[in-house]
Amino acid sequence: MRKRPIPTRRFIKPSFTSLIEKKRDGQEFTQEEIRYIIDSTLDEEMPKHQQAALLMAIYFANMSAQETAILTEEMMLSGEVIDLSHIAKPKIDKYSTGGVGDKTALVLAPLAMASGVVVPMMCGVEQEFVITTLEKLSAVPGFKGHMSIQHFQDQLARIGGAIAEQSPELAPADKIFYDLRLETGTIPSLPLITGSVLSKKLAEGAEGLVIDVKWGNGSFIKDLEQAKQLARSMTRVGRSMKRRCVALVTDMNQPLGDTVGTALEIKEAIALLKGEGPEDMKELVLKLGMEIVRLAGVAGSTLSAKQTVQRHLTDGSALEKFKDMIRAQGGDTSFIDHPEKFPTARHIRKLPAPKRGYVHTINAAMIAKGVSLLGAGKDAAHHHKIDYAVGVSEIKKVGTQVKQGEPLMMIHYNDEAKLEQALNYFKDAYRLAPKRPIPPPLVVERVA
Amino acid sequence: MRKRPIPTRRFIKPSFTSLIEKKRDGQEFTQEEIRYIIDSTLDEEMPKHQQAALLMAIYFANMSAQETAILTEEMMLSGEVIDLSHIAKPKIDKYSTGGVGDKTALVLAPLAMASGVVVPMMCGVEQEFVITTLEKLSAVPGFKGHMSIQHFQDQLARIGGAIAEQSPELAPADKIFYDLRLETGTIPSLPLITGSVLSKKLAEGAEGLVIDVKWGNGSFIKDLEQAKQLARSMTRVGRSMKRRCVALVTDMNQPLGDTVGTALEIKEAIALLKGEGPEDMKELVLKLGMEIVRLAGVAGSTLSAKQTVQRHLTDGSALEKFKDMIRAQGGDTSFIDHPEKFPTARHIRKLPAPKRGYVHTINAAMIAKGVSLLGAGKDAAHHHKIDYAVGVSEIKKVGTQVKQGEPLMMIHYNDEAKLEQALNYFKDAYRLAPKRPIPPPLVVERVA
Repeated sequence: MRKRPIPTRRFIKPSFTSLIEKKRDGQEFTQEEIRYIIDSTLDEEMPKHQQAALLMAIYFANMSAQETAILTEEMMLSGEVIDLSHIAKPKIDKYSTGGVGDKTALVLAPLAMASGVVVPMMCGVEQEFVITTLEKLSAVPGFKGHMSIQHFQDQLARIGGAIAEQSPELAPADKIFYDLRLETGTIPSLPLITGSVLSKKLAEGAEGLVIDVKWGNGSFIKDLEQAKQLARSMTRVGRSMKRRCVALVTDMNQPLGDTVGTALEIKEAIALLKGEGPEDMKELVLKLGMEIVRLAGVAGSTLSAKQTVQRHLTDGSALEKFKDMIRAQGGDTSFIDHPEKFPTARHIRKLPAPKRGYVHTINAAMIAKGVSLLGAGKDAAHHHKIDYAVGVSEIKKVGTQVKQGEPLMMIHYNDEAKLEQALNYFKDAYRLAPKRPIPPPLVVERVA
Repeated sequence: MRKRPIPTRRFIKPSFTSLIEKKRDGQEFTQEEIRYIIDSTLDEEMPKHQQAALLMAIYFANMSAQETAILTEEMMLSGEVIDLSHIAKPKIDKYSTGGVGDKTALVLAPLAMASGVVVPMMCGVEQEFVITTLEKLSAVPGFKGHMSIQHFQDQLARIGGAIAEQSPELAPADKIFYDLRLETGTIPSLPLITGSVLSKKLAEGAEGLVIDVKWGNGSFIKDLEQAKQLARSMTRVGRSMKRRCVALVTDMNQPLGDTVGTALEIKEAIALLKGEGPEDMKELVLKLGMEIVRLAGVAGSTLSAKQTVQRHLTDGSALEKFKDMIRAQGGDTSFIDHPEKFPTARHIRKLPAPKRGYVHTINAAMIAKGVSLLGAGKDAAHHHKIDYAVGVSEIKKVGTQVKQGEPLMMIHYNDEAKLEQALNYFKDAYRLAPKRPIPPPLVVERVA
């Protein structure tokens, strides 16, 4: 399965303990050493407890840019690397570190397809408290995210895009490490995050990658500086692996758009694909879309990139591509044409503002937790019992002025008991203040 | 088996991952948390890979003095704690972190016994490249280091001392951690070393402990500052566990005494027990012996402690106690009376000085490695094939002036092929210089 060349010079295997000690003491691994660690992990030759100690040593002692690039490449080469060279069009993927209310993937994939870009998008399920793109798409009856690599390649050749479940054949070494990291407190390590994300993304066959690194209370990265570092780490590794790479560091200190939920977010995405929808989502789709078409070489200048993206959102071609993809993956497209067909909640009630003032901050993670309690989150998804109708809409964003009793958002729910619990989170998520706050910029930094 | 009281307030078990994260982020564990970790380790409830990640997090994030004391106590309480309260005499043990040519235990145990102190000494086998006290004693035909706790207690009551193998019933949690630390690069952590050593030592029932922390090229602690820190860490924990504790930080940048080997070292110990032997060993025995008798309350002043120790070395009473102990443990004491009965090597040759000058440095670890290659080291011990006769004697110490060709030491060997390999280490161990170096002080610091 390994695709890499056989090493030309003889490598004398070190003991696993000496490799752990080397990293513990802050030394840099060679390519052969990283390759040996990955091989031994796959072969189950390196015991799990030694892998765990090594991951913690990496957490503390870090990895250089070069080590991170080698780690990424070796993890990528631990499994299948999809070949899309038979497809002539530019192939660009998009990755987001995950945020509350983030439905950009649903819009960007068809938008890029409409612009002549092939989008080979596989999605993980690993994002803490965030409803994943595939969980949202499962609201469309018949839609299947699961497909073989062959099927994935065929669909890309045929219609130019796919949003599929992460294939277990890609970067299996990452899967082993990721599961171990979850149990050993070694998730938040920049080189390990970089290696984990890019080993899978770059195995999907894209020539370029647009990365959305989110920072804030609704992201697993709470610190802006760390988000910037991750953006730099990822683009650097992407470049060293000869892929075009751009990262935007964006705000995740309040939910994105007006809705958080499943069907509610699909409906917002459909609006965006018609050139409508909330301003912040429109801005993010525009900025990320422009990066995609420029990376693809479809548009040269900033102006032409903007025009390309805007045209495809308003002329209906992006929406058509969305339907093509839904159809190709077994989904009922009549739901896209008639979004009112999506299930709706039995009850809708407002979250009243406890006093007059300005929305000062919104804890996005708490909104996500509340929605999850209503029945649309990780727990529900694990038990295949997502309640597609529940969620929140008409979210009043940071900087909005409200009167006492005016709705901060509308809560869609089916179960009174669940509402009770969720309400506490929703209430605690909002902080009102007498003075208008300065809303945070949506795009903080562009790293290329 | 656990001896500790049942906790009075309810402890809600945290996840192992959250405990790892807590330590990773530099926070302090509570007593309940450390107890839970130790219990879960013993019960095999905490998976090995999570234990490994935790140990590496402790390596990097350290433990406070209080945490270290709790860790030590909880590890001690994971097994039997020997009760010696039925013995009226003061009970003091001695521990050395291990050094090349260090035969002090063989002298100090009977010396303390002769001074009216009971010595409950159990010895580990974990010391890297150092020949252990029990390996040396196994040169005496019939001698047994293995005994039950009951037998240990009986012998202490009867003759006042024992040098026994570490009982697996003492601090079993340490055994689990220690084996894991060996494989995960987490041996050199001050709180983990402290916990490991003291959990076993303080389970032996002694009221006080004299610790010899060695630093230098023949110790696993190469750095003086680290040795001082370990001395402070150990005495602090000892005190917090209500034991009298003194530590001396001593030099291990050259072999101790004139000999390194098995029978050779026993013979040197017998000489010391007659008040003879090399100066450095005499000084160390005197200093450590004085600490023991003062800690025991046998001698009040420094002068009276010195007189007590010197008297028992010269009047033959320490040697008698050594024979009592050898006899009680099945050994043939005629070897002590007639040390010439110990096996001698077929060949003895000198290591000639390559040029004239002063002995500037001796790498003690290399001497140990050479002796090990001759057949008296760890490898031989593991295979129960120690060659008791081999080793080195008449070691020229740092500061000694030598002419070209004059012996730096005498090599006792039985096998020409082994000599070949060993010679390279012996040669490389010595550095001669034209000017007399300032010999390092034997006792660097006293920590009480």
